[in-house]
Amino acid sequence: MTNILIRHVTALAALSEEAPERAEILEDIDIAIADGRILAIGRLSDSFIADFAAEGKSEKIDGREHIALPGFFNAHTHAAMTLERGWAEDLPFDRWLNEKIWVAESALEEEDVYWGAALACCEMLHAGVVGFADHYFWMDQVARAVEEAGIKAYLAWCQFGIGEEHEVGGVTLDETVRFVRDWHGAAEGRIRCALGPHSPYMCPPDFLRRVVEHAHRLGVGIHLHVAESQEQMENSLQMHGRTPVAHLARLGVFDADMETLAAHCIVVTDEDIAILAETGVHVAHTPKTYLKLAMGVAPLPNLLQSGVRVALGTDGPASNNDLNMLEVLRITGLYHKNALGHPEAIPLAQLLHMATQAGAEAMGFYENGSGSGVLAAGHPADVILLDTRAAHWFPRHNLAAGVVYTAHPADVSHVIINGRMVLRDGELLTLDEERIRYEAERRAFRMVGMPMRAVRTYRG
Amino acid sequence: MTNILIRHVTALAALSEEAPERAEILEDIDIAIADGRILAIGRLSDSFIADFAAEGKSEKIDGREHIALPGFFNAHTHAAMTLERGWAEDLPFDRWLNEKIWVAESALEEEDVYWGAALACCEMLHAGVVGFADHYFWMDQVARAVEEAGIKAYLAWCQFGIGEEHEVGGVTLDETVRFVRDWHGAAEGRIRCALGPHSPYMCPPDFLRRVVEHAHRLGVGIHLHVAESQEQMENSLQMHGRTPVAHLARLGVFDADMETLAAHCIVVTDEDIAILAETGVHVAHTPKTYLKLAMGVAPLPNLLQSGVRVALGTDGPASNNDLNMLEVLRITGLYHKNALGHPEAIPLAQLLHMATQAGAEAMGFYENGSGSGVLAAGHPADVILLDTRAAHWFPRHNLAAGVVYTAHPADVSHVIINGRMVLRDGELLTLDEERIRYEAERRAFRMVGMPMRAVRTYRG
Repeated sequence: MTNILIRHVTALAALSEEAPERAEILEDIDIAIADGRILAIGRLSDSFIADFAAEGKSEKIDGREHIALPGFFNAHTHAAMTLERGWAEDLPFDRWLNEKIWVAESALEEEDVYWGAALACCEMLHAGVVGFADHYFWMDQVARAVEEAGIKAYLAWCQFGIGEEHEVGGVTLDETVRFVRDWHGAAEGRIRCALGPHSPYMCPPDFLRRVVEHAHRLGVGIHLHVAESQEQMENSLQMHGRTPVAHLARLGVFDADMETLAAHCIVVTDEDIAILAETGVHVAHTPKTYLKLAMGVAPLPNLLQSGVRVALGTDGPASNNDLNMLEVLRITGLYHKNALGHPEAIPLAQLLHMATQAGAEAMGFYENGSGSGVLAAGHPADVILLDTRAAHWFPRHNLAAGVVYTAHPADVSHVIINGRMVLRDGELLTLDEERIRYEAERRAFRMVGMPMRAVRTYRG
Repeated sequence: MTNILIRHVTALAALSEEAPERAEILEDIDIAIADGRILAIGRLSDSFIADFAAEGKSEKIDGREHIALPGFFNAHTHAAMTLERGWAEDLPFDRWLNEKIWVAESALEEEDVYWGAALACCEMLHAGVVGFADHYFWMDQVARAVEEAGIKAYLAWCQFGIGEEHEVGGVTLDETVRFVRDWHGAAEGRIRCALGPHSPYMCPPDFLRRVVEHAHRLGVGIHLHVAESQEQMENSLQMHGRTPVAHLARLGVFDADMETLAAHCIVVTDEDIAILAETGVHVAHTPKTYLKLAMGVAPLPNLLQSGVRVALGTDGPASNNDLNMLEVLRITGLYHKNALGHPEAIPLAQLLHMATQAGAEAMGFYENGSGSGVLAAGHPADVILLDTRAAHWFPRHNLAAGVVYTAHPADVSHVIINGRMVLRDGELLTLDEERIRYEAERRAFRMVGMPMRAVRTYRG
């Protein structure tokens, strides 16, 4: 593998969990990358650099006028739903889902998932996303796209647990166990797997108990949707006598020796928040979708203050139209500052921490104090560079503010994942973008052009 | 002037006030531009095209894979405050203003305003903004930047009306009248002027009455800040016995024969909204700043339903960090859908209407049914093209949704203002960007590097 040397860059490093209010800016430093990891970061001596260059094939990047930061982790999405981007606009949630999304999905074919996920990988890599947590169907196809793209991913096959043999992309629990066995740890460790029951409102308790048993046996986590609406809360209280969070905790879904990634947690009680904190559940917060579908917004400040581990995500592009973590950072900060009435709340470094290290942790890519999401020697080299030469960056009083409140995907010039250059000067090196865009669009149009039927009905 | 012919483009046209819920998409059409106006739009015949090309020098743009739409009008900003972008982050509003913004401005020199405004023009043109309403000091400098940039602008010299001779950039009312006389209608009509009292809470009633008299005499409008906080509401009730809106109406600021552009109107009563609707006041809605500074958000749906004319703006980059109307479109839709609890609210076409035609109307660039903000024959050619070939546009189920919820400034490939090509293939043709970025940054760093003092204090 080619070594990489980034010279004279400004790094936004040290977004530590311990001091999330501080983003340390290191000016005019060098980053040496070898064997997939950051070998050294700082002002490197001439002799170090000469030795490094002599060690083998190495690529040098002129980092002047650029900022280096840990790549983003998108903690909850449905990548192949790129195929439905823009297909259902300005609709109430039930019509959005029942009349448009699930109807289009009834025409989904297995290979469509590959092209939809590949399109998502193109978009995410251009936007500086180095890893994503995916929850969808026919996940072997997503794994194949991830393997080729050079990105990291945490993959879960979505299951409803009711009549799954009749569902589009639906398979038996045994088949998803097979998927985990085939792919967990694959692509040089870039792929990690989890089990993916859809949610407590779609999956019966018995099914969830079986999922928990399998997760323990496989030593993997669970990724599911939790507590998205008041309706779900009321139905859960009526059916199970418990809130969705308490119900899941009782079923063992939040067991402390198992990693759980709970997307959303919008309607939660104080007791629910205490459970999420105690059990170490990772919550994925995806505010763009909440706003677009008028779902209300999860109580992020309460979650953070109570010690819940929160990562940020985009959710699927069928709802929020893109996979852009820069925008998620922005919307998270903007929305919650205003909702709290405190412009000093959710500071820059805390936002960046949630979009990087906290996301890596939620997907199991950060372990034992040495994982993705941090720019430090010994950590995996998941590094992105942003070009700060466009007018919207000037004057560069505060580069962290530039990333969070001004930057665009087009500013992302380089993406390095596990020490491998995946995007160079804005050009994607791993995938045939033109072919993917063409194939994905052709298939997306086919999906909505043919006679369709809804296969499921959402009733809250 | 060179004629322009755009071939085989998809146009997002007809964002009419009459049917704001519909955005008409015209596929594979041509747009012929001559003498600053749209000469023809539609599927043009070969003979028309041959004649058009024969008429003189003409530039042809291949519009395939692009979308054409009316350029954006930014209805409220302080362009030269680019100089303070990122200078005051994560602070409460009073500290943001008193300790950072007004302190930095105490070091502002006249020529700084030129460079700050020129930087803003670079950023806005790259983002498809064809006109902006500016409210700041030393406005001759802004006018000079506008003249060179080729952009349209509605310029008002900000005045506090109290001891103005001691203020940075502060001048007498006579001097701002001189500015209006010098620049109104200048730059081939691209510059329009207004008077710019800061707000009812900073300007004494007598001063506002004098401003109204001058506006009538000059035949120009007034651009000011209105009703930004509950504190302002309470102080106004206490000092004047009236809400800020009722107070201004009584002083004649909203006289029907004079155009008024009222920025914000966040804290308004039902009676205030009725006054704004009756008097035809244009309200500039700048939600990114409201959220970032936790100001609360103006009741946009109420304003629209009551018939108030609302345009969209960025406010200054010191508060919201950029001048990107694509993001304002997005945040406006997202925020208000959720606030209302109706994802079908504030539909795509209504958002686009507010960011284009309604903005042109607010600045006087739309008159007698034939102005900027609309793609139709006879209208001024203020046209932008977005390249839809990046992964985030695919599949192109809904191009209006792509513009509002996915697009970035880097997608803006061409900007045509009054029939003149200002941005071509992403390259700005009118300004020396590199020099502007350098000068603006140098001056911005100087402003915050020298010993500083606050010249004003905000107390709500």
